[in-house]
Amino acid sequence: MLEFCVFGAGRMGTKHAHTLSTLPGVHLRYVVDVEAEAARKLAAQYGAAATDVATALADRQLDAVIIATPALTHAALLVASAHAGKAIFCEKPLAASIQESLSVAREVDKAGVPTGMGFMKRFEPGHYALHEAVAAGEIGKVEMVVLTNRDPKVTILSLLKEQHAVAPYTLLRESSVHDFDMARWMLGEEPVEVYVAGSALVDAEIAALGEIDTAMITLKTASGALCHINNSWRAVYGYDQRVEVFGSKGMLRAENRPVTSLVRYTQQGALHDPLHSGPPDSNEFFLYRYAEAYPQEMAHFVDALKTGKRPMCSVEDGLRAQLIVEAAVESLRTNRPAQVAMVA
Amino acid sequence: MLEFCVFGAGRMGTKHAHTLSTLPGVHLRYVVDVEAEAARKLAAQYGAAATDVATALADRQLDAVIIATPALTHAALLVASAHAGKAIFCEKPLAASIQESLSVAREVDKAGVPTGMGFMKRFEPGHYALHEAVAAGEIGKVEMVVLTNRDPKVTILSLLKEQHAVAPYTLLRESSVHDFDMARWMLGEEPVEVYVAGSALVDAEIAALGEIDTAMITLKTASGALCHINNSWRAVYGYDQRVEVFGSKGMLRAENRPVTSLVRYTQQGALHDPLHSGPPDSNEFFLYRYAEAYPQEMAHFVDALKTGKRPMCSVEDGLRAQLIVEAAVESLRTNRPAQVAMVA
Amino acid sequence: MLEFCVFGAGRMGTKHAHTLSTLPGVHLRYVVDVEAEAARKLAAQYGAAATDVATALADRQLDAVIIATPALTHAALLVASAHAGKAIFCEKPLAASIQESLSVAREVDKAGVPTGMGFMKRFEPGHYALHEAVAAGEIGKVEMVVLTNRDPKVTILSLLKEQHAVAPYTLLRESSVHDFDMARWMLGEEPVEVYVAGSALVDAEIAALGEIDTAMITLKTASGALCHINNSWRAVYGYDQRVEVFGSKGMLRAENRPVTSLVRYTQQGALHDPLHSGPPDSNEFFLYRYAEAYPQEMAHFVDALKTGKRPMCSVEDGLRAQLIVEAAVESLRTNRPAQVAMVA
Amino acid sequence: MLEFCVFGAGRMGTKHAHTLSTLPGVHLRYVVDVEAEAARKLAAQYGAAATDVATALADRQLDAVIIATPALTHAALLVASAHAGKAIFCEKPLAASIQESLSVAREVDKAGVPTGMGFMKRFEPGHYALHEAVAAGEIGKVEMVVLTNRDPKVTILSLLKEQHAVAPYTLLRESSVHDFDMARWMLGEEPVEVYVAGSALVDAEIAALGEIDTAMITLKTASGALCHINNSWRAVYGYDQRVEVFGSKGMLRAENRPVTSLVRYTQQGALHDPLHSGPPDSNEFFLYRYAEAYPQEMAHFVDALKTGKRPMCSVEDGLRAQLIVEAAVESLRTNRPAQVAMVA
Repeated sequence: MLEFCVFGAGRMGTKHAHTLSTLPGVHLRYVVDVEAEAARKLAAQYGAAATDVATALADRQLDAVIIATPALTHAALLVASAHAGKAIFCEKPLAASIQESLSVAREVDKAGVPTGMGFMKRFEPGHYALHEAVAAGEIGKVEMVVLTNRDPKVTILSLLKEQHAVAPYTLLRESSVHDFDMARWMLGEEPVEVYVAGSALVDAEIAALGEIDTAMITLKTASGALCHINNSWRAVYGYDQRVEVFGSKGMLRAENRPVTSLVRYTQQGALHDPLHSGPPDSNEFFLYRYAEAYPQEMAHFVDALKTGKRPMCSVEDGLRAQLIVEAAVESLRTNRPAQVAMVA
Repeated sequence: MLEFCVFGAGRMGTKHAHTLSTLPGVHLRYVVDVEAEAARKLAAQYGAAATDVATALADRQLDAVIIATPALTHAALLVASAHAGKAIFCEKPLAASIQESLSVAREVDKAGVPTGMGFMKRFEPGHYALHEAVAAGEIGKVEMVVLTNRDPKVTILSLLKEQHAVAPYTLLRESSVHDFDMARWMLGEEPVEVYVAGSALVDAEIAALGEIDTAMITLKTASGALCHINNSWRAVYGYDQRVEVFGSKGMLRAENRPVTSLVRYTQQGALHDPLHSGPPDSNEFFLYRYAEAYPQEMAHFVDALKTGKRPMCSVEDGLRAQLIVEAAVESLRTNRPAQVAMVA
Repeated sequence: MLEFCVFGAGRMGTKHAHTLSTLPGVHLRYVVDVEAEAARKLAAQYGAAATDVATALADRQLDAVIIATPALTHAALLVASAHAGKAIFCEKPLAASIQESLSVAREVDKAGVPTGMGFMKRFEPGHYALHEAVAAGEIGKVEMVVLTNRDPKVTILSLLKEQHAVAPYTLLRESSVHDFDMARWMLGEEPVEVYVAGSALVDAEIAALGEIDTAMITLKTASGALCHINNSWRAVYGYDQRVEVFGSKGMLRAENRPVTSLVRYTQQGALHDPLHSGPPDSNEFFLYRYAEAYPQEMAHFVDALKTGKRPMCSVEDGLRAQLIVEAAVESLRTNRPAQVAMVA
Repeated sequence: MLEFCVFGAGRMGTKHAHTLSTLPGVHLRYVVDVEAEAARKLAAQYGAAATDVATALADRQLDAVIIATPALTHAALLVASAHAGKAIFCEKPLAASIQESLSVAREVDKAGVPTGMGFMKRFEPGHYALHEAVAAGEIGKVEMVVLTNRDPKVTILSLLKEQHAVAPYTLLRESSVHDFDMARWMLGEEPVEVYVAGSALVDAEIAALGEIDTAMITLKTASGALCHINNSWRAVYGYDQRVEVFGSKGMLRAENRPVTSLVRYTQQGALHDPLHSGPPDSNEFFLYRYAEAYPQEMAHFVDALKTGKRPMCSVEDGLRAQLIVEAAVESLRTNRPAQVAMVA
């Protein structure tokens, strides 16, 4: 039995706790949250105990932790968990600054513990199957990747303002970062250069802040493969998530999935169901679109722990995606292509 | 140069005259129509002469005729043209009654002239490609055929009344007959039994006449292969024409084609363009849906004449489709499966 | 808390027990199976007790039962549960013979308990949404229904032989019966006449038995609406499940869903993922295609019990589908349309 | 009757001559070509006379010219025809250098003759309908345009070498230039900045030349709208031509059209027909994909002449697309975004 601790009893922590309960050979031992009541409630639901970080990490029975706390606390929890020898599944980012992320990644690496990173988009069945086909060489050498990632809604403005003060360009840090991970994974090599064209078209307040809500990004690898990413916070037709990979021997596309297969034929044409975007009054569209991906990513991590295989998405991937974010921010500031920092 | 005569300067005769003008090695020599002015006008347009039936058929330079006159005149023209040794392309039907059709087919057969029949649906590129795949054995033994053939509009009621007096069940004679031809072609063997369930749902006058406007038809072959046909005169979303063939090794489907590839994404969903149905105030929807099929069927007939190959759709096919119509009419009258008459 | 007992610890009983565990306000109290060990194991997994029928039904705390035992036992369990005043969810059929089903339905009706019937296809999200659109009048008066229901595999032959001795035409009883339910639901009125064309094309042993493996069925309602059903046990391309409803104001189609949204583009064309059919060596294709439908049907039943609303699919629906099966069998035997028996 | 002269009896001249023959109220009066025999042959086919430039332009009966000669001769023919007061339809480019194009455009503008430019992609029915929807405001303010334009084949290498010496980056000049026109048309405003990431991935000789065969291009307008274009000379799955426009109120996509609607279902999945790419041994894929667009663009030009309306695609559009090409070339040379030159 693999014993888990979940750090953070919020939305993602709750989701992961639930997924763990459906996986065989796994037991949720602890829940930790600064809000004691939230921790207690979640723990109770799955037969776990609410406790604190130190107690959890000191328990030699504990095998693995899931870090689903606010971003600012990730770095410390990662380092502490690594030092305690626990396997770690961490939501992005590693740390608030790239310097800290580099240092965290080094510490975790030294500890040699297995790690997983919450880039759930890899585990969407269409994306995953597409990557398998790429990896099997079905389309030969990858030459172009086109990623469409458009949210149906803007991040809450007050939040955007807060984040702007600390680390500007939330669109790049919160949305594009997922695409940077997907791009690396699909390209099969590291992007070395980034160019970002960004605009504020959706909301005048975003423009006033100097933030962006619309972006087109170009990545280039050493071999000359190219990747285009487009992001927006205003897809009124739903959460638009598409992957296209073009190679010397063909093309692979993972399209959106309408909610159901129903098509309505009238004089106007054939109306296919809209995209998965969750309830209209909610901001949790990603939970609906990636409903299958979340359990898959956790199952993959648990399976890796059981078999001793390296998880296919690790802390190093979190670091590399963040390095591209940094270059993207620089490109946006200078309106020139920027180099992605190299790490050993 | 192949010399042609077109009998009938109406819609279909004009269409065929135009197609002939685009085919190399073909010359329109004569146009014949009881309305002299119509014949003269069409003839002038393509450098032909307006003449009468006797003169045209007596001309030894003439190679082939196209019969596109009203149905009641087909039989006489077929027989006269066959006796004159001309190749014949004939719009359906062979004759007004099945007895007459049998006798016409016998005469034409005796004359040994090449013949073509205006079952243009075979030549729609998707249908044609589907049949090629069936014939190549791609799906093994054919087990089920499903044909959808729904008109966007009812035949003009006054016409329906006239036809009812002479030969009831216009839906079977004008619409289903095309499906009977497609069924035979796709099944690769003759239907031996027919069952028709028919209703009058679209128009109270049709019901009052004792006619039908909606039908579901089942065909069965000697080997046990089955075919379903559904017909309606009320497809408000456009002219619905689909072919599905199911076999021991797979399935083939030729779907409708929307007018353009445009898709509109809104909160309601993804609206694909409507079907090809022609202008809203016209009854010529089939000319739009089968715009590619008409020139193809004529090109095929001309090519057969040039190469000496047997046209793939002949007077015999016209006869066999009509025999199924007769059995379908009997089935509708008796509400029982009816046998299709056998001919040598 | 609603207290449930599951009769039958086999595949479907286990599935329902699991679904109950995910629904709030529901508790699995008992599991009953003639194989004590199977009952004990399933009970243990969900904190229930293994017991016998009498004990379970005598427990006044018990609210509802799920009948997922072999078909021959359904009738007795239905009657006993109804007499005990329990709500009943029953897998098809009600009873082995139509006479017994009629009598069971009468008893259950007299008891006045809420009932649900395991016609899970109604709950597939596309089918459900399609029915909602029909019920909302989106396509006006329903005129034609076309149901495609093709299994990728033949029922195990030894089983087929057994069933043949007792009640011939397993294809109609096990496959078409689901379509009869869908047809009634989509038509919004009762079929009054059935015509079946059946063949044995898939397996020589099936032909030798006098059974069928391929069928085309026509249903007709009093208002003249028509329904076509096609069934086969040999869809090599996967479990083919489609619903099409055509009405005076449009058409609705619920198509198959490929396993993922991945499309592969090569010189051969664009290859879309195959259909959901489960593992190649399994006969449980329906569990994969209807993975979303099973939990939905149980959630609906539980919700009906909680709110006091009538479940939308009840024992009466089970009876009516079976009455159509009887008429279909008669039609196949006589090769004529047969009337569906009327019940008050 | 509008009297036309076609300059150039090659592939495009022949195509336009044929289209003119199908349009009412139009007469082909002259064909001009340096190869007298080619001119004579084409002229004979359509009842025109072969002549020279001076004679044709001096004829006061002549209304319009079509310039379909080699690119180097365009400038002189444009100016001469404009001075002669003829309406002009010209294949791209206006002239070999941007300086010359600017001067040609000025001369033509001064002459005040109606002009049309051979950007046929606008007239593909799906593209045209998409633009109509954009222009009608269906998707609100345009925010992002994504254009996919991938040829199945590399331009002949010897040609590429020749062009490289004169004006490098044939991919930008021959392929992307069409996208620049489409981008301007769809954006509804002028791109002010261009960034090009280009690679040579398809052929080592192309790399050796310093040319590119693969590109991702970003355009930005003054209002902040963004456009992505991707180009390749190696789409093994066919000529890939897609348009996507994203706005504040929705998205519009014009997808590729498979050759026929046939779909083949097997255990591997559902294989849709490949894209229109012409015969495998030909380089004329565009003639097949845009078979409907060529007659439409000519019909539009003729209609504009008849009604006195301004053609929707003129010499000015040719100039503006070429100005973007120049900026794109600069961007590729400097690896920085480049400004598009402004003209009054």
